[in-house]
Parts: sequence; C-alpha cells; structure tokens
Amino acid sequence: MTPEKPRKEEQSIAALLAPDILDLLESEPGTVAAETQDLHPADLADVVEALPHSQIPVFFAALPSPRAAAVLEYLDEELRTELLEQMSAEQAAALVAAMTPDDRADTLEELDEEHAEDIVEALPAETRRNTEQLLLYPPESAGGLMTTELVSVPASYTVEEALRRVREIARSGRREAMNVVYTIDADGMLAGVLSLRELLAAPEGARMTDVAWSEVRKVAVNADREEVARLISEYDLVAIPVVDEKNRVLGVVTFDDVIDVIQEEGTEDVQKLGGMEAFDEPYMQMGIMAMIRKRVGWLAILLVGEMFTATAIGYFEGRLANVIFLVSFIPLIISAGGNSGSQGTSLVIRALALNQVTLQDWWRVAMRELPTGLLLGLILAVIGFGRVELWHWLSTAGLHAGPIDIGYYYGPYHTYVALTVAVAIAGVVTFGSIAGSMLPFLLRRVGFDPASASAPFVATLVDVTGVVIFFSAAVLFLGGRGM
Amino acid sequence: MTPEKPRKEEQSIAALLAPDILDLLESEPGTVAAETQDLHPADLADVVEALPHSQIPVFFAALPSPRAAAVLEYLDEELRTELLEQMSAEQAAALVAAMTPDDRADTLEELDEEHAEDIVEALPAETRRNTEQLLLYPPESAGGLMTTELVSVPASYTVEEALRRVREIARSGRREAMNVVYTIDADGMLAGVLSLRELLAAPEGARMTDVAWSEVRKVAVNADREEVARLISEYDLVAIPVVDEKNRVLGVVTFDDVIDVIQEEGTEDVQKLGGMEAFDEPYMQMGIMAMIRKRVGWLAILLVGEMFTATAIGYFEGRLANVIFLVSFIPLIISAGGNSGSQGTSLVIRALALNQVTLQDWWRVAMRELPTGLLLGLILAVIGFGRVELWHWLSTAGLHAGPIDIGYYYGPYHTYVALTVAVAIAGVVTFGSIAGSMLPFLLRRVGFDPASASAPFVATLVDVTGVVIFFSAAVLFLGGRGM
Repeated sequence: MTPEKPRKEEQSIAALLAPDILDLLESEPGTVAAETQDLHPADLADVVEALPHSQIPVFFAALPSPRAAAVLEYLDEELRTELLEQMSAEQAAALVAAMTPDDRADTLEELDEEHAEDIVEALPAETRRNTEQLLLYPPESAGGLMTTELVSVPASYTVEEALRRVREIARSGRREAMNVVYTIDADGMLAGVLSLRELLAAPEGARMTDVAWSEVRKVAVNADREEVARLISEYDLVAIPVVDEKNRVLGVVTFDDVIDVIQEEGTEDVQKLGGMEAFDEPYMQMGIMAMIRKRVGWLAILLVGEMFTATAIGYFEGRLANVIFLVSFIPLIISAGGNSGSQGTSLVIRALALNQVTLQDWWRVAMRELPTGLLLGLILAVIGFGRVELWHWLSTAGLHAGPIDIGYYYGPYHTYVALTVAVAIAGVVTFGSIAGSMLPFLLRRVGFDPASASAPFVATLVDVTGVVIFFSAAVLFLGGRGM
Repeated sequence: MTPEKPRKEEQSIAALLAPDILDLLESEPGTVAAETQDLHPADLADVVEALPHSQIPVFFAALPSPRAAAVLEYLDEELRTELLEQMSAEQAAALVAAMTPDDRADTLEELDEEHAEDIVEALPAETRRNTEQLLLYPPESAGGLMTTELVSVPASYTVEEALRRVREIARSGRREAMNVVYTIDADGMLAGVLSLRELLAAPEGARMTDVAWSEVRKVAVNADREEVARLISEYDLVAIPVVDEKNRVLGVVTFDDVIDVIQEEGTEDVQKLGGMEAFDEPYMQMGIMAMIRKRVGWLAILLVGEMFTATAIGYFEGRLANVIFLVSFIPLIISAGGNSGSQGTSLVIRALALNQVTLQDWWRVAMRELPTGLLLGLILAVIGFGRVELWHWLSTAGLHAGPIDIGYYYGPYHTYVALTVAVAIAGVVTFGSIAGSMLPFLLRRVGFDPASASAPFVATLVDVTGVVIFFSAAVLFLGGRGM
C-alpha cells in the first residue's frame, strides 16, 4: 500500500484477507479464482489494494478476464494505471476488452496517450471501433458518461419476443445493468421505454407499441453531465437513453454513474467554496506540489485583493492619531460582513446547483437578502454597541485581572464610538448579504461557475468595502469629536 | 403559484399546459385523467403547481387514486401539506393509501401531528399498521428511508416459481421499483439476492439457492442514512435490504432515495461551510424570519469571537503610536490565515464525508498540511514583502495620481516593516492550514458534525491568532526600531 492511499473503514477487513490470498497465489494460484468468487468486485479491489505491488499482476492473471475486468473497474485509479502500464498492450487489451464500454473508455482516458493508443490498437475490431467512438465524447458530457450496452427491441415486437431477446442478452454474459428495455421504430429512432418489471407484468400477446411508454426522458449526446444528473434525479430513473440529433439511441447513462457525478459535483462545490480550484483526485492521493498549485492561485489573488484594505486604511490614517482605538474594531467589523456574505454565497450557489433558482431569479433573491441582511445587521449592531458601552463602563469601575485592566476607556464620546461601531456593523452585514448572494449570479451571467464565488473571495470583496464603511461612519459620528 | 415557489426551467412548459387543463376541468372533468395519462407524474406535478390553488383539489379528484398518489409524491412539499390539510381525513387517507409506503410515511411526517393521526386512523387496517411502524423510525435512519414493498421468495423456490411470483406482484399494480429479488431461508432470514436480469438469465429448473448471491450487502434498520448512501454508491446497488438484528428483511432503500440523500447532505455541507445552520427547505421557500433564525446564531457567535481581535489589538495599542501604518496590514494578514484555513477545512470536511479519510488519519493529514501551509505561506510572504518594498520605493519616486500620492513612505526601517509583514503572513498561513484541517477532526472526535467547522468559524479562530502573530513579529523586528 502506498502511503498516499486513502484508508477506508473496510480496508482492515481487506488487509486481513490479503495474506491468505498471498499464500494462495504462491502455493495454488489455480484456486484463487474459485476461493474469491463470492466476494463483490468492490471488496476484491480492496483486497488487491492491500497486496504488495509486485503480486498484483500475478493476482489478476489468476482470475478469468470478466472477473478481472470487474475488479479493475473498482480499483483505485492510480493503481489501475500503474498495473496497465506494466502490462504489454496485448495483455492490457485482453483485460480492458472485458470491461463495460463506459468504464473501458474512462480507464483508457486515465493512461498516457501513447500507451492508451497501443491498447486500443490491440482490441478486437468491433470493441475497438466502439471504444474509439466513446473516447471522442468529452468526459463531462452525456456521451462521456454513457455505456453502449443496452437492450433495445423493434417497436413491432410482441411482449414475448422482447422477453426472449432480453433473456438472450442477459445470458450472453454482458454485465451492464439492464433494468430497462427501449423500443426502436422502423426508422431506427427511439420510440418507447419499458422497465423490466413492466415487461414482465405486460399481458401476453400484447405488442410493445401498446405497452411501452412513448414519453421517453432522454438526453442529447452533448448534454452536460449536470443535466443528465438532474433528469435521473428528478424522474427517479434507473437509466436514461442518450440520443443523437436524429433521435437514434447511442447509449444509456445508468443511475450509478450519476451518483458518482453528484458526489463529484458536491466535492467541487465545497472545494471551490473553500477558495481553491477543484481537485481531480481524493485529498490523500494528491501530491503536495499538485495540491499547492491548486491552492496558491486563489490565495495570492485574495492577498493582492486584500491589499486594498491597506490602501483604504492608509487613506484614513491621518485622522486616526487621536482615535487609535478605532483600529482595534477593524477585524471585527470586516469579518461580520465577510461572514454574512459567505452565508449568502453558499445559499445561492447551492440553490443554483439544485436548480431551485435560475439566473432570472436574481432580483427576487436580492429582495429576500436585503431585509434579511438589514435585520441580521441590526441584531449584530446591538451586540457591537453593547460591547463598546460595556467595556467603557467596566473601565470606569477600575477592575483588574492580574496586570491587565478590565474594560477600555473610550473617552468622553464613547457613545459616539459605540454608534460608529454599530452603524458600521449594520452597514457591512447588509452589504455582505447582498454582495455575497449576487456574486454567484454575476459569475454565472458572465459564463463562470457560480461556485467560484468562494467564501474567502466574498470576504475579501466585503473587507475592502467594510473598511471604507467603518471609517466613513467614524468621520460622520466622531468628526469634530476627537477625530 | 405562491411567490415563495422556486421557478424551474420547465415550469414554463407546465404553465403553458395549465390553462388547457383548467378549461378541461370546467368543461369535461371526466376526460382530465385520459388527457394527461402520458405525462410523467413529475411533469404533471409541475402542471398542478401552476394551477390556481382553488382548482387543485378538483384536479386531484378527477384522477384515479394511484395516479393522484403518484403526482402527490412529486408535488412541492408546501403545496402537498396545504392540499392534505384542506381535505377531510377520509379523503386524505384514500389518497395517501395509494402512495408507496416510504413516501406515505414521509408525507404524513410533514403534516401537523393531529391531522396526520386522523389520516392514519382512517387508513385500511394493514396499511395503517405498516404506516405506524414506518413512522417509528427516525427519518435520518435506514428505517426512515426504506419502503416495505419488495419482492422476496423462499430460498427453496425454483427459478420458474420465483419468476411467477415476480409476475404476480408486478401485475398486482404496486408501483415500487422491483429490480431485485431477495431469497428468504426457512427461518425467515435474508439468504440471498438476485437481480431481475439475473433471474431471467438463470437456467430453467435451477433452484434459487444455487443462483442467488449469498453475500448480500445490507444495512441495519437503525443505520445512519449516510451509511446507506455509502453502500449503495460503493457497490453500485439499485436497492439495499434493511434488516433487523435477527437478519429478517424489514424493507429496502432504493437508489432514488439515496440520490436525494446525497444531494441533501451536499447542501447541508455547503450551508454549514458557509457558516450557518442547514436549511430544511429550498432557499426560496424558506420564510425570511426562519432564514434569519438559521443565520443569526453563527453570525453572533463569530462576532463575539472576533471581539478577541479587538482585545489583542488593544493590548499592543500602546506600542503602535509611532508605527501606526502597521495597522493597515491587519486585514491583509489575518485574512491570509483565514483563507488558507478555509481551504484546509473544506478539503478535510469533504474527504471525511466521502470516507476518503477517517478519524485516525488526522496525523497523516497534519503531516501533509504542515509542509503545504509552510510553502504556501512562503510564497505569499514574498508577495507581501514585495508590496511593502515596492510602495516604499514608489513613495521615494514622488509620483502622484491626482491629489493622492502613489506609494507609501515606511520610514528608515522599511525593510524591517517588510520583514514583519512577510514573517507574519508565513506564520498565519501555516497556522491557518493546520488549524483549518484539524478542526473538522476535532469536531468529529467530540461528536459534532465536522462540517460545522465552517469557513467563517476557522477564519475567526485564525484572526485572533493572526493579530497576535503579527504584532509579535512587529515587536521582534521593529522593537527598538521606531516601535
């Protein structure tokens, strides 16, 4: 096991099994396949990940190729790439040929281009053509997600004929889930859909045209994977057919691929919201340098952005000499704005991702965030006002905690100081709510991912404004009163 | 449509259909069912949402109850509650009795308790018992997610017998997806599983015991819904059986419910990361006051936490008189730490959510974040150093932009000022990475949701430390040099 490998809860079980399998590989390699046949391929992949790297090719050689291919599909990406690059193109081709078409294409895409091409060359002619076709679709599109193994029958079939065809395909040993049957009309176009369950329930002698649903949810081959995920999730589909512009079925995307997409999109949203580029790999597998590259860009941009706060403070500096205590409130005030902005941003990013709001809703969102921000700002302003007045009152009481005085003497105009702080908080919180909630709309409008409106990005935007709001309030309330 | 309702892209289509349906409801209510029978219930629910509220009960009355129940399942939660509360308990019971058991339980849980009890009383005896049972399970558990409609056969059955049973159930008109058949042994315990496809492919005359998979992935009825989601996603399952402590099957959770869980968990993570409590409802449906309650708590806590920065700055205030320009760097320095902390937090939260790391991995994560934070800190420190020196150099060049001087004169010790800023940045960024990445572990360790380690929470923690690090660096480098 490489030190970079994520440790899952089950790997302890896998680690327990691994030594037995290792013994078996040495003493009786012929029995390995039979001994492990009851394990789910996902569990067997965990066992493989616990084997010494040198024994992994030996292990795969001991399995029949459909089984080996199934395990390969669940194997950690890095290890899979390593294994296939150790093999000759012919060995690798024999293995990937037994994978489902979509996983085969995904696996080849992970390899370096030259080796992938050699493997494709070594595939049987039909598999090769199919694979080359799938590799043409962008990985983020419906075409990139789909598998080409599906069950379709002519719409003119009877229920019995369709059932016979399903049985034939199921017995041919293809491994793709086939919970749905599609019907195709005389022109080769998608005509209807029926679940396997509905097919079994259909009256004997009926024609497929009469029992299949004619309103088929489908996606265009170039549709974005988020659209695929949305349809599968909205209509509770086991699979969705992928069609070309002439409505001919090219493949299907199954629910399990969509679950992966939804998890990946969730991870991307969280990482972007955290203020960095989305990672392509699990956290523990990412190299330190690769991770730094993903993180440093935004940090540097934000640092430069934050430099405007220095400029803004510098601009007021001349007036601060007599009210130097005001600067101690800067972090408190600007962070209140950043926090309310971060709330607005994450709410809107998620609502956009789940299609709960669309671009046109920006005005309705603004009309919700304005009263929300104002009220939140007022509540926090009361706390801020109380803090100044309380500390001032404490300072007059002359209490001490060891060498440190308790409280702070804000001078004769302490109520104006408290007012300055309160008004500044109310202002920046309101501004933060609005700016934070509008930024994702703005980003989507100009073609960016709204999730790029990260919490730190919003906080930086609001910080600069916060400084200006704060000192403007100070000039207003304290100008001529010590400032 | 209430003003609170989210507007989806498709509602324009629904809105187009709604007037036709409205006409039909007035002129020929008897034809409504036939006219809409080809629509997916999810689409029909969209149409319902576009009808005037007064016409919705009329519309539901015009549909046969299985169809009405299917539409009800896809209806917006608020509208569904409103509709059922307008009806008599008997009317409502007739409608919810036709729903799938899991959706029926979920629907009843949304209603106010008294009305829900009245409806349950009015259900047919068996449905009522089943519903009362389901309502006992916490909504966040496997039991709360599961449906009780599943296909199981005695393990002693032949393939033909099992197939006959499946046909019978499918023809009985139950609507739950039945893509999987479970086998039950003589003691009533879960023995095996077979997909419908595998059942069709099984050799005629074979016994279920011989063809079913005996290693069945299953969950305990009180398992957390995240565990259910993890298993379905890891093993690409269409459904997972839910068992009691004696391994008897109580129900199944299907993939579509898990997709909803994964999306909800993603939303919760994003909202918590944004620094607030997770919402129970879509953003646009949440009332303003309810939203403020979810948001104000964290904002107030963070504001109070941030007050420690004021205390920290106040502590150094006496030494600042001659180096007042230092305060202008406070936002820049503390936000650099907050940003790197927010990165570390969101990475670890997501890795924990996807089981890529577990609690025991905290040390390995720390050993990755330490070098990462140091290197990120050094890179940003160089930028910070450059900023001070560049501004100083510009100030000596005597340039102006209108009335404003370009640059800033940092005095004879400008290189020490630059050094102070640089060291402070490097320190807070390193500290931020470590604190941000360790906080989710700490929270999980003490039993909280790691996602509560929001970006604003981490930023606030780091802000206070950042102020102390910055002024300590200032005392170190500038003490005796003007400070």
